[in-house]
Formats: sequence, structure tokens, C-alpha cells
Amino acid sequence: MEQKIIFRADAGGSQQLADAVIREQPLTIYLNGQEFVTLLCTPELAEMLAVGFLRSEGLIRSYADISSLRVDEGEGFVFVETAGGSLAEKLYGKRTITSGCGKGTVFFSVLDSLKMAPVQSTLRISYLQVINLSRTLQEKAALFMQTGGVHSAALCTPTEVIYFCEDIGRHNAVDKIVGLCLKNMVAIADKVLLTSGRISSEILVKTARLGIPLLISRAAPTTLSVELAEKLGITLIGFVRGSRFNIYSHPERVQL
Amino acid sequence: MEQKIIFRADAGGSQQLADAVIREQPLTIYLNGQEFVTLLCTPELAEMLAVGFLRSEGLIRSYADISSLRVDEGEGFVFVETAGGSLAEKLYGKRTITSGCGKGTVFFSVLDSLKMAPVQSTLRISYLQVINLSRTLQEKAALFMQTGGVHSAALCTPTEVIYFCEDIGRHNAVDKIVGLCLKNMVAIADKVLLTSGRISSEILVKTARLGIPLLISRAAPTTLSVELAEKLGITLIGFVRGSRFNIYSHPERVQL
Repeated sequence: MEQKIIFRADAGGSQQLADAVIREQPLTIYLNGQEFVTLLCTPELAEMLAVGFLRSEGLIRSYADISSLRVDEGEGFVFVETAGGSLAEKLYGKRTITSGCGKGTVFFSVLDSLKMAPVQSTLRISYLQVINLSRTLQEKAALFMQTGGVHSAALCTPTEVIYFCEDIGRHNAVDKIVGLCLKNMVAIADKVLLTSGRISSEILVKTARLGIPLLISRAAPTTLSVELAEKLGITLIGFVRGSRFNIYSHPERVQL
Repeated sequence: MEQKIIFRADAGGSQQLADAVIREQPLTIYLNGQEFVTLLCTPELAEMLAVGFLRSEGLIRSYADISSLRVDEGEGFVFVETAGGSLAEKLYGKRTITSGCGKGTVFFSVLDSLKMAPVQSTLRISYLQVINLSRTLQEKAALFMQTGGVHSAALCTPTEVIYFCEDIGRHNAVDKIVGLCLKNMVAIADKVLLTSGRISSEILVKTARLGIPLLISRAAPTTLSVELAEKLGITLIGFVRGSRFNIYSHPERVQL
């Protein structure tokens, strides 16, 4: 967060004051000496964002694939070297690239995702565990909610939050979590992903690519995300409000 | 909206029921016979979205630039022919392209925007007009808010709403409005743009590209959007809540 001088207007008039505004900065990732992508993000955990982004996009599989990593926070650069150019990296150049819309970046198409194998997992969660995890995420987020402009994501077991991250972009918050998992060698594929944001098709496809079987959001899904969740084997839970929630796909993982 | 069969869980157990989910579909724009871009969007007003997107991205300047336009709603295709390939279109191929993240698509970089001339406008708005416009947008949005997953945008004069559009993507909602303005030959550059979403740098740059001098949101801006608004001559108003709001840049357009 950063203080900005603003005018606050109300019925009584206006006053000039300093107010907290959520930070947004371009972060450019250089991969093996080449400018790779620029993300618009909240600069905290820049290293984890870069690592998680490369994993989410299939450029690396583990933290050991990285031979060197250097962050220049002031300039907003991350320099990543990988051990030997992977096939994925070579193929990646064939795709078209852009920076995202502050919500992260999606390089793959929804159509590509239909060729993916469905997520396989024996993970189960109970009604109370869903309610409790959502409540915990909201409590954590509330601490940082002064600025009103931030998304949060958390990686959890059915009973506890392992990592919690925030960013102006829904996708970035998830990628920071992916980066933390990779660095600390925490398995992501048997966990629950919570997000504060709406579930559109790209966040669903990202979840499937990471092999996460259970996605929970306070917010609403779209029709396309519901259809993809059904097809890709993901249990999609949305609209968690108070003691109530909706299960949109694969309810067999929820013990009611 | 579309009805989906879901399970709703609460403390008393669960029941299967039909619930409204916001529609999300891929819309592929073909420009002069070439596949141009695929947007993930809410399919209403697909034609206006395509027209607005092409205008926002600088591919057309007016509706007269379009020699033919055909929408295949079932397949999610829009076929646009323009009168003579413009220079912009030729240059456009040099840029890298991707579909956005359900929030619309941003092809230009934040750095590009720094070369833009600041928005010039004599538009003024009063304290009460800001409050009233925001209230009107919220009332309109409330009608459609059953699904919880939608963004809205409106083009207004200081005293009334001219167009109101919704989409799962903040950018798409704005582009639908741009399309309506083009088709109906309504000037956009001397109006006020209202959005339900957070103000990140790309929506700010889009506003500047369209020459809109005043951007109002119920939600929060980021530091980068505040800095760009200052530089690009845009009055940025955020956090409109009840009878209060914040002015982040160019307060000279607001009569307090």
C-alpha cells in the first residue's frame, strides 16, 4: 500500500488528506535472457509470483528446474535462468503473448483445456470444513481490506490454511501461492484452492492445469466455468455466504 | 443468464435445485476474413462488443469504417469487413495477441500510454451529480444482480445515463458502450464513464485512449491508475459510498 493525497468529498464539503491506495506495478520476467512477459501486479512476493507464473504456464515443473533467480524490486524485474531450454519453452514462443489485464495472464485457450485429462483426487471435504475455510479467508482478507482493491487466494487442506496471498489480480494471487508451494516443496494437487474472486473460465482452467480438485469462492461462477469444472473433474463451490453455499459440479467430494 | 442444476448446502443439509448462472461464452471476431481475437464475454450485445472492441483498439474510427457486419450468435462468431485495410490493421499484426482473462483484452502496454496526449475537456460535474449518477448505476445493476458475477458500465452526461451495459468482464462492458456510441453516433469524448469494477491501469489507459475525461467507480483504484490518471488528464473518482467519494486526480473538474 502507498499513501496518496486525495480529495474526499461529502455532503459537508471536501478535504484534502492522505489515503492508502493498493500498489500496482509492472513486473517484467526475463527467462534465460529474453524478455518473457510483463505482469501488472502488487509487488509483494514478486519472486514467488514469477516462479508460480512459470509453473502455471508449464515452463517449469519444479523449483529445481530454476538454476538462478534474481529480483530487482526497484526496477520491477525478475531474471530467471532454467537448466537447459525445455521443450515447453521452445514451443511457448509459438504462442501469442500479451500482458494480462491486471487480473493475470492467460496464454492457453479454453479450447486447449478440453484436451486435458480430468483431475483425479480422493480429496474429500465436509460441509463444516467449507464454511470454516471460507470464514478464515475472509478474516485474513479483512486485515488488509483498507484499500478495497485487492484479491486474495489461499491454499488449504480441508482443515487449515497453508498459504494466503493477495494481489490486485485474481490470477496473480493464485500464482504467488503456486510459487510458495514450489519453493517449499508443498504438494498443490491434493489441496483446496480458495479465491475471493469470481470464477470465470480462465481461473477454472488454471486450477485444472495445476491438478487442484477443489475450488471454493465467495463469489459467483460463470456458465462456462461450471461446464469446464464438470468436464475437468473439479468440484466447484461458489457463493459461500454465512452458513450456505452452492456446489456447481462434482458434489461427490463434499460430505453433506 | 442460464439455469444450472446445483446442490445448495446449508446447516440443515442439502437440496438439488435450478439456479441462475451468468453466461460466459467465447466470441471470435473475424476481421476481413482473418481470425482476429477471441473474447470471453457475456453474449448479449455481441455486435456492439465487437464494434466497440475494434474502436477501443484503434482498428476503426467510426461506424462508417465498417462495410459489412454479420453475427452468428449460435457459434459465437462476428464477421467484420472494413473498407480498405487501414494502416492500423496492418501494424496491428505486429503486436502479440491473446484473448483476455474474461475481463477483456489489452493489447497496448502501459508504457505506450505515456506517449499519449492528455485528455482535453471542459466537462464539469458537481458533487450531487457524482452521487446521483453512482446511485442510478447501482439501482440499474441491482436489477441484474441475481447472479452476482457481472460487471456494469454506463456512459453518462453529468445528469443522466445514456447507455448501460453488463458483462462478466469490466472491459467488455465498456466496449459494448463504445459500440453503441459508434453505431448511434453519440460522442463519447465529452461524457462520463461509470464502472462497477476496480480501476487498474488498463481500464485507465482504455479511458484515456477513448478521450473520456471523467471516470467514476464505486470501487478502488490502484497506485498506477492514479498516477496515469494524473498524467493523462483524467479526473478519477473512486470509492463512491453513500454520500461520500474520493477524488484521486484532476479535482478541478469537480465542483464541490
